[in-house]
Amino acid sequence: MGIVVQKYGGTSVGDVDKIRSVAKRVAEKKSEGNDIVVVVSAMGKTTNKLVDMAKSITENPCKREMDMLLSTGEQITISLLSMALKECGYDSISLTGLQAGIVTEGIHTKNRIKQVDTNNLKKHLDDGKIVVVAGFQGVNEKGDITTLGRGGSDTTAVALAAKLNCTCEIYTDVDGVYTVDPRIFPEAKKLKAISYEEMMEMASMGAGVLETRAVEIAFKYKVPIYLAINTGDKLGTYVKERDKEMEKKAITGLTVTDDILMITINKVEYTTKNIALIFDVLARNNVNIDMISQTAPHDNLVNVSFTASKDDVFTIKDVVKELESELEGIDVDFESEISKISVVGIGMMNQSGVAAMVFKVFSENNIDFKQVTTSEISISYTIDSSDKEKAVEVLAKALNL
Amino acid sequence: MGIVVQKYGGTSVGDVDKIRSVAKRVAEKKSEGNDIVVVVSAMGKTTNKLVDMAKSITENPCKREMDMLLSTGEQITISLLSMALKECGYDSISLTGLQAGIVTEGIHTKNRIKQVDTNNLKKHLDDGKIVVVAGFQGVNEKGDITTLGRGGSDTTAVALAAKLNCTCEIYTDVDGVYTVDPRIFPEAKKLKAISYEEMMEMASMGAGVLETRAVEIAFKYKVPIYLAINTGDKLGTYVKERDKEMEKKAITGLTVTDDILMITINKVEYTTKNIALIFDVLARNNVNIDMISQTAPHDNLVNVSFTASKDDVFTIKDVVKELESELEGIDVDFESEISKISVVGIGMMNQSGVAAMVFKVFSENNIDFKQVTTSEISISYTIDSSDKEKAVEVLAKALNL
Repeated sequence: MGIVVQKYGGTSVGDVDKIRSVAKRVAEKKSEGNDIVVVVSAMGKTTNKLVDMAKSITENPCKREMDMLLSTGEQITISLLSMALKECGYDSISLTGLQAGIVTEGIHTKNRIKQVDTNNLKKHLDDGKIVVVAGFQGVNEKGDITTLGRGGSDTTAVALAAKLNCTCEIYTDVDGVYTVDPRIFPEAKKLKAISYEEMMEMASMGAGVLETRAVEIAFKYKVPIYLAINTGDKLGTYVKERDKEMEKKAITGLTVTDDILMITINKVEYTTKNIALIFDVLARNNVNIDMISQTAPHDNLVNVSFTASKDDVFTIKDVVKELESELEGIDVDFESEISKISVVGIGMMNQSGVAAMVFKVFSENNIDFKQVTTSEISISYTIDSSDKEKAVEVLAKALNL
Repeated sequence: MGIVVQKYGGTSVGDVDKIRSVAKRVAEKKSEGNDIVVVVSAMGKTTNKLVDMAKSITENPCKREMDMLLSTGEQITISLLSMALKECGYDSISLTGLQAGIVTEGIHTKNRIKQVDTNNLKKHLDDGKIVVVAGFQGVNEKGDITTLGRGGSDTTAVALAAKLNCTCEIYTDVDGVYTVDPRIFPEAKKLKAISYEEMMEMASMGAGVLETRAVEIAFKYKVPIYLAINTGDKLGTYVKERDKEMEKKAITGLTVTDDILMITINKVEYTTKNIALIFDVLARNNVNIDMISQTAPHDNLVNVSFTASKDDVFTIKDVVKELESELEGIDVDFESEISKISVVGIGMMNQSGVAAMVFKVFSENNIDFKQVTTSEISISYTIDSSDKEKAVEVLAKALNL
């Protein structure tokens, strides 16, 4: 038996009773002979409550102080879980991000893990203790407390597993990775296994079960992830290196992303300089652009469309004002009822015809798509949100998901 | 202008509005040209809530984990206060006990400050920042987060002021040190100044405005303390080295301590060995004994009385069981309606007759006292709690307090 890293998210440790249940599950795994590192998030709504307090003091809280504030959430959970483990008769110790050797870099509230020093942690494992680590947090080289941003506890767990060279079990309130989000398509099938590459595409496209950054680290260091429901009573999904079995299947899953904004800049005079200008101004304003399309020139004018997150709507409006002063005669449309549907599959690389099949399904069902982009293992379409449910259903059935 | 350490307790930072008020007061002091270090406690009932969570998991929480848990309370306050200061337009940074260089020793939940390294803190002061420090907490040599026990934030503030060689202003919900607790004797007078020695006696006898340990450190390092109400609109009390003015007055104040348990062990066979045994068993069980008295031997039997805190009642009952098995024929009384009244004054050292005057006042007013003890600058009496109010009133009037 070796070391296992287990991660329990905010809903799994939402109250004292749930912390007690987690302690029981961790204790079971320990009594099977494993050395256990448990990574936990803040309890339930704790982080939201702390954010609300900060927002009631200032609209724009200092990010360093925000990290100082938010990191208390995980610190509360680790101490309570460690107490609960001792109450079950298991020796245990809690460690903050700093004490667990998580060194970060980057900007506050969105730090990245730079290095992990597990010496202190290993010493406690060698003493037979269950080590409970605060997820989501670390310390930078100045000694400031830092946090890793959304999904940061997943990242902590995978980074520790990478350094300890062991499996990472992620327990959450969903019971695995499905071919399609079961809330949209209840007939969706649970995947027994999925490759890192597919999981990264699924995660970045909003599958929401696992943070992209965590999957990236797992991919880089070949950390086997097991993702399952926190009650442990259903088989979950393995995220691992791709194998022959996976490659046989053209399509692994289908993801849907809402809250997309599609902007079309009509009647742009067609010069390379003008097109470059548009994306330069967007980049200078830190707007993350996803899909881009452009019509063929007509009377030397083109229409340029791109999608972005609705979060950036105010920044984009500023960008458009700047563009209107630079590009004479343009005319800008905003569409906010847009969804993105992506089909993902490692097998796509070896099989042609997936795109053709999707086009055919859309055409047979009178679904208009606005844009299409492809990567090696995915094809994405933007459609009207009103067509979303129909599109998911016909695609999922046609692709046997 | 130099450095000033200000400390605000839990009620002063009880909610977001109060934190904003504290920020305004700190900002005022800063704008007068001072470098400011602010030490804060956890917000209002935060510590109690955290203790309740721990107690709901286990009756006997691990003390190391308790420190990990409780230290989050101050960490929340420092980040919010620092945000509020920035919102007022003042540059500020929050520091945990660790980051402020507070190194402790001793047992968890009751640590003592071992050393203070203010290099990091001074660097931020030199940058013009208001430094907000988490009171009550530190780190031990193993790197564990520690707490200082009851009143720990006062101790943090005074220890920092000692190291920074500056004044320590302690803001609280009482407006200074009174000759008598004004809740018991409303005519009590506020003291403009009190010596460290008197304050230590007052604090250890339950005056409750300042922790004994903090006064000890202030005394040792000659830190001037100014104790005042957190609104700043009333003159407070200076705690400082004694001067001629103080020595002229025989009595400075009178304190009352409730929740005292008086135990009398009757009919102990009068041998040194037997008396020693009693106090040895008490010591082995970590019971803190306050006053001790013994009757003259009669038929070679004596009665031994001592007082202790009501908190220790269960331990003392165990001790009594042990004593009953060792000392044949004893008969034990517990009295729980006991109060202690102490009169404190540095001038007592030079003036005789204070004890005589108190005896006379008690006798004239038919107040029976059970025990009496004296130190260089205090005399203490135990009386029935039912006599407490009368005793305070007649003594305060006779001593002109």
